Parts: sequence; C-alpha cells; structure tokens
Amino acid sequence: MAAAGDGGPSEGTGEGGRGDGCRKVYLFDRREKESELGDRVVQVGERSDYAGFRASVCQTLGISPEEKFVITTTSRKEITCDNFEETVKDGVTLYLLQSVGQLLLTATKERIEFLPHYDTLVKSGMYEYYASEGQNPLPFALAELIDNSLSATSRNTGIRRIQIKLHFDETQGKPAVAVIDNGRGMTSKQLNNWAVYRLSKFTSDHSGYVRPVPVPRSLNSDISYFGVGGKQAVFFVGQSARMISKPADSQDVHELVLSKEDFEKKEKNKESIYSGYIRNRKPSDSVHITNDDERFLHCLISEEKEKDSFTAVVITGVQSEHIQYLKNYFHLWTRQLAHIYHYYIHGPKGNEKHTSKEAGPFNNIDIEISMFEKGKAPKIVNLREIQDDMQTLYINTATDSFEFKAHVEGDGVVEGIIRYHPFLYDRETYPDDPCFPSSIYKEVLNFL
Amino acid sequence: MAAAGDGGPSEGTGEGGRGDGCRKVYLFDRREKESELGDRVVQVGERSDYAGFRASVCQTLGISPEEKFVITTTSRKEITCDNFEETVKDGVTLYLLQSVGQLLLTATKERIEFLPHYDTLVKSGMYEYYASEGQNPLPFALAELIDNSLSATSRNTGIRRIQIKLHFDETQGKPAVAVIDNGRGMTSKQLNNWAVYRLSKFTSDHSGYVRPVPVPRSLNSDISYFGVGGKQAVFFVGQSARMISKPADSQDVHELVLSKEDFEKKEKNKESIYSGYIRNRKPSDSVHITNDDERFLHCLISEEKEKDSFTAVVITGVQSEHIQYLKNYFHLWTRQLAHIYHYYIHGPKGNEKHTSKEAGPFNNIDIEISMFEKGKAPKIVNLREIQDDMQTLYINTATDSFEFKAHVEGDGVVEGIIRYHPFLYDRETYPDDPCFPSSIYKEVLNFL
Repeated sequence: MAAAGDGGPSEGTGEGGRGDGCRKVYLFDRREKESELGDRVVQVGERSDYAGFRASVCQTLGISPEEKFVITTTSRKEITCDNFEETVKDGVTLYLLQSVGQLLLTATKERIEFLPHYDTLVKSGMYEYYASEGQNPLPFALAELIDNSLSATSRNTGIRRIQIKLHFDETQGKPAVAVIDNGRGMTSKQLNNWAVYRLSKFTSDHSGYVRPVPVPRSLNSDISYFGVGGKQAVFFVGQSARMISKPADSQDVHELVLSKEDFEKKEKNKESIYSGYIRNRKPSDSVHITNDDERFLHCLISEEKEKDSFTAVVITGVQSEHIQYLKNYFHLWTRQLAHIYHYYIHGPKGNEKHTSKEAGPFNNIDIEISMFEKGKAPKIVNLREIQDDMQTLYINTATDSFEFKAHVEGDGVVEGIIRYHPFLYDRETYPDDPCFPSSIYKEVLNFL
Repeated sequence: MAAAGDGGPSEGTGEGGRGDGCRKVYLFDRREKESELGDRVVQVGERSDYAGFRASVCQTLGISPEEKFVITTTSRKEITCDNFEETVKDGVTLYLLQSVGQLLLTATKERIEFLPHYDTLVKSGMYEYYASEGQNPLPFALAELIDNSLSATSRNTGIRRIQIKLHFDETQGKPAVAVIDNGRGMTSKQLNNWAVYRLSKFTSDHSGYVRPVPVPRSLNSDISYFGVGGKQAVFFVGQSARMISKPADSQDVHELVLSKEDFEKKEKNKESIYSGYIRNRKPSDSVHITNDDERFLHCLISEEKEKDSFTAVVITGVQSEHIQYLKNYFHLWTRQLAHIYHYYIHGPKGNEKHTSKEAGPFNNIDIEISMFEKGKAPKIVNLREIQDDMQTLYINTATDSFEFKAHVEGDGVVEGIIRYHPFLYDRETYPDDPCFPSSIYKEVLNFL
C-alpha cells in the first residue's frame, strides 16, 4: 500500500518507551497501615538486574537489606531474578509488601495510559453489526461518503457534482473506490481534524462539516446514515484511505493517508501511533505516486488542474467480497442509492413522469457512478437517469395521491404524501422492491 | 462528579506542549524549485519576537537578512509582528516563500498529530442515530451492559447474577444507574484495556470479553446489541462511569473512573488526556468516597466482602430525560428486556406454561432490576417472573406450533419455530406488542 512508501522520517518516540533505556518505577510501600500514602519513584538503570534494583529500593525507602519483604506487581506477582527484565518496565507500579497475599490496608493509585487503540478509527461495530444481521452494509457505507460530499457541496452555487469511481481495471493498479466532489474542500487543519474527530451528523462541528439542508418530504434520506462518520465508512470498504483536498482560494492541495498497515507498522515499531504527515503540494503534482499499485492516481490527480476546489477520498485495499458485490450487483445497489437520494437528485416533487431530466436550481445534485473493468466499456450511470428505483415506482404507479402538512406545537412540521395503489385486474399495483423481490420470500415460504 | 475529587497528582505534560517555553518550528524553504527538499528545525526562545525569529531563520538557512522573502503558515498566512505569538506555536510547519501566493514547486510534509478526541469514548453516533429516528435507545444501552455481564458470567458454574440498580433516592446522593454481575471480574490490566479498546462482540478480544454462547432458538437475543461496546452504552446513559472489579483469587479490588467532566478539565489544562489512575484497594474499603453526591456507593462497596469476584459499572450524571423514562416506563422497558433475554432467562424451551419458575442448570441466569425512590418501597423485578413479555405471549397464545431445523452446507444450522395464531371469535389471537400497541397506530390513522 502507498502509505509505506509515503512515510516520512520517524521520530521513534514510542508511547511509554524512553530512548535512554532508563526505567522509572512507581513503588508503594504497603507493608503496614502506617506506611506513607504516596508512591516513591525508583530509577532503574539500563543494565540493572534484580539485585541492583532491590538495593535501590532499600536505599530509596531507607530500609535495611536484611529486612524481610517482597516486591510485587499490582497483580501480586512477586518480582524475582527470573522475571525482572520482562516485568519491571518503564512506568510500572509496584508494591512493597510483607507477603504476596497481604491485604492492601491503604489503597494505591496505579498510573495508567489508555490511549485509544487505532481500531477506534479503522473498525466500525455498526457496519459489522449490520453485516452480522445478513444485510450488506456496503451501499450504506457508500451513502455515508455521499452524505459527506452533500455536506461539502452544500454551499455550491452551481452544480453539486459527486462522483463514485470504481477502479477495477488491474492494468491500472490494485482495486480502488474513489468518491470525488466539487465541494469547498479542506485546509490542512481541517484535514487534520477529520482524522482527530469522530465526525457525524450527530456530533458537533470541528472540520466544517455542514449538515445537509433537510430536503422537503425526503422521508427516506436519513436511513442511509449510521451516523458514525466517514472514517468508519472508509475502513468498512477498504484498508487504506487517501484524502486529497483543495479549498477554494488556495494554491495548495493537501493529502493525508491513513492506513491499517501503517498503524500496524507503527505499533510493531513502538512508534507514536497518532503522529503523521500531511503532504502539501501544487495541483496535479503526482511525483509522489511511485507505487505501481496506485498508478490510476496519476490520472485522477492530473484532473485537479481544472478544479477550483474539491475533495477526493481514495480507498484502496478494498475487500474482495466488496469488489464482487459491486461488480455483480451494480444494477441493484445503484438503484438503492437512487432511492435513498431520490429527492436530492430529482428535487421536491420527485421523479414524476414528464418532468425534465436536466439539472436545474432545484435538482442541481449530480451523483454519478462509474465502474472501470479491464477490456470492458466503462459502466457509467447518473442516478438521476434511473427510472426504476423504488421511490420512482411508488410515485408513478399510484393512481391517486393525497398530500398533507400539519404544524405541530413549536417549530415542528409533519409533512407527507399518501399514495393509493389499488388492487387492479387481479394483481397488486404496489411495486415490488427490486432489492427484496417478493418472489424470494415466496420461495422461502415454499421451502418451509 | 467523583472524578475530580478522585484525581491524583498530574504530570502536566500536555500533548504538544513543552514545559520550557521553547518552541520548535519546522521550516521548508520553497523559494525555488532547486531548494532543498527537507525541512529545517528552527528553535524559538520563550521571549523571542518576530524580528528575533526572522534573524534565526536567516542564520539557520544562511541567507542575508536583506533578501526579500515571506514566512507563512501552511495555510499561506504571512507571519508578522502582530500574529507571531498566536501563530508560531511549538511543532508548527512554516514556509519560506518569495510571495504568499507562490506555487509549491516541490511538495512539503507537514507534521501532524491526530490523537483521537475523547468524544471517541464518550459519544456514540449509533445511540444518537436511533434517538434521532424517534426510538428510545435506552433499553438497548441497558441491554449492551447486560450483554457484557452475560459475557463476564459465561464461565460461572452456579447462578449467573446480573443486577441493575436504579438509585433515584436523592437522600442517598445524585441519581445513578449501577449494573453489577458476579462474573469473573477484571485485573487492573484488563480494566486498563477496557478503556483502551473499542470492545464489542464484533471485534477481537483484548480484555477477556467472551462472546455469549449462542442460545438455541434465541432469535431475538441479538437485536439488543449495537455492537459498539460498553463504553458507548455507559456514556449514552450518563456522564461518568466508575468501573469497580475484583477477579477471583485476588486480594484487591480495582477501580477506574472515566468522566466527561474529567476529560474536559484535562483538555482545558492541556494535560495528557489519556493518562489516569486505577485505584487498587481492599474489598469494602470506601474511604475514598468523600463526595456526598455518591454516598450510595458506601453501601454498594460494603457488599463486596461477600463476593468472590464481581464487576460493577456505576453510571452517574444520568441524563434527566433518562431518569424520567426509567421511572415512568418501568413496566414497559422491563418487559422489553424480558423479551430480549427470554431464552437466556427461561432456557431453550422459553417461558411455557406450567414450567418451573425456579433457576436450574438451563436457566441459571438471574437478571434483577431494582429501583429506589425516596419515600417509596423499592420496585424489584426478576425478569424471569415477567409473564407478559412479547415472547411469552407468542408462546402461550399460539394454538399450534411447528419446529424445524435444517442443516446448511458447511456448519450452518437454520432452526426455528412457526407458531399458528388463528383469527378466532372475531378477533386476532396474535398478541399486541405492549411497546407499540396497535391502538396507537389506529389513532394515527384516524388522525390522518
């Protein structure tokens, strides 16, 4: 993955590690109730052994080396010659006791570090939860990324363009999923914050995230979010995220790579997990892309020149089952997205027959999906062109509809539309869901 | 909250801060394409001003002070006398350019820190998501904590006891929710890991979390989890968590407090966010509980003496709307929990009529809810005694049932039961859900 080749000089300051090999130990004397309450710091030299350590302890506490005592960990494991090296690490808390099993007559305070594990960033229980329930959460993960782009483009005056590009042509590099928008972009500080915060529409705003304006009657637009933010969606799709962004009125493009492989490497080398680099560069400068696996990036980066501002999320290390799903069910999941974003792409009246399919002031959101495979013509679909998403079918198969709007106490508005789908000519006119066709249910019932 | 009074000595090592007031700045000379690639470190003294800084820069890079150049941030803000103090902070990356708007002919690498914000621990988009959808996620948060207790007690040979205690008697302190189990408990290391990892049943095991053994035909037991782990559930309920745990064969009880207030205090004081203390003490020692708001803890801690091993999660700073819900809908949410854990508490046959209500080898899980209010008798209910949870109603109102079990390729087993609820004597025999009575839907429809 790119992150490795992209890494900069490392300071090598591992959490808890100390370069000089000298260890600091916190010792509580708990032999008697009257012992002092606080801990004493004992320095342990790099080449110190158990005997030397025991002597330092006696000296620090002013006790005779002849006295009977044990030194234990807070789990009451006695320190001995044999386990000294592996047990007495820098920052550890130890007890001085009469015996291993002695009660703590007065309490101790053990110093701990609880830096969140990087799983916090690269795993999302929520997507895994849905997967475990037998639903494929991949369309929802894509929707989460589309939501971020809707937020980023919310102040656009012209067309809001959101592109999902599936690079599955192995002659161009390893598989990748890219989500690109022409929104306002991020400064390097905002990009840094993207990595720091658990951004979601339910948490406060730290990186310019703007909640999408509620679209009238867009009752279904919110089912897309799990509200866990873009990082989790990215790491549900793949193993590495390259964020590339340029704010308007900026000369520079900012680039940040977060990858699971890189986190694992840092953990192994005891490097600082949450230190990294943002690459600042001029637009269309791709000299840093030297890894052949990502050569499709040269093309993507070369297009930056034409853009005033943008954000691109490039996901690599895409899980192979996701690639299979995206290829084999292209028709299905694009319809799911067209359904979810129906009122965003068609405007408040929805995809009624005989309305113009051109973008206009009320339907200026273009969501375009393209898939590139070796030796095949690219599949490209603009969600607005889809005529058989569920919402379009609801609208166009109803024989009558009744709109209502009720003002609730305070600022609340309940708005809705009831459509009438009669049972006609011996069949239901209520449309079948292409994602869950009723024929499948019937088969299951027949099986039972 | 307790965390403040409970805090120990602070080292005051804020992230990025340096005690000596000396700042380290990383400077990229990007005036020309041929400029060197790497950055130069410039030390800035505590009392340095812009003129002094500019002189250091000239000296470090060996350029004449007469030369024309600007020093800017990576956001291209020029450093001047006026903004010097607020802009040139320790660890910042700066550019040396011909002009503010000059292109970066070669890229730069800006050092960043992206320590996860503590919101990662104390917020859960998932619960907030469900709340935003109009469902009350509180019973699910309680279920998440019960799940943790099911895991902790999974190796118990005798009764597995899980108690939820709602301390709403203001004469005993501020409101608190405690979940206590007689499971295997945690060592101080495991307690530390509880804080570090995002534990859930979908992620790997770092603190002895054991996935509950699948209960046969317990089709509904999994709807309880969001899979986001206990920390998120705790911080959905309240603002502070006191974890108290004692492993079997240990003399010591381990106690860790995580509180939102404490995180905010550390952030404000620029202290290390993820450093803290575990209190190790003898069982039933509550001398550290000096805050009157938590005096109910003396009683809870005094009960430790009788227990071989246990874990107690004590949540304070409980949100007032949760208190209202728990009080006013006690009947409702206890039935919801009885439904969710039906096969855990009743065994594989469920709560059939005429079966013994005593605990036995196949139904040895006691889940007891008790609520304490001022001037009222405590409300205490063992979930096994509940006779009108949905699952019990399904089982006992069916006139016939058909069990099936199918082996799927590999290890899969599809198991189920179909119950027949006929339409009899002019009414449905399929039971109404007490949580969502159909009469409410009818009212909504009448309104429309």
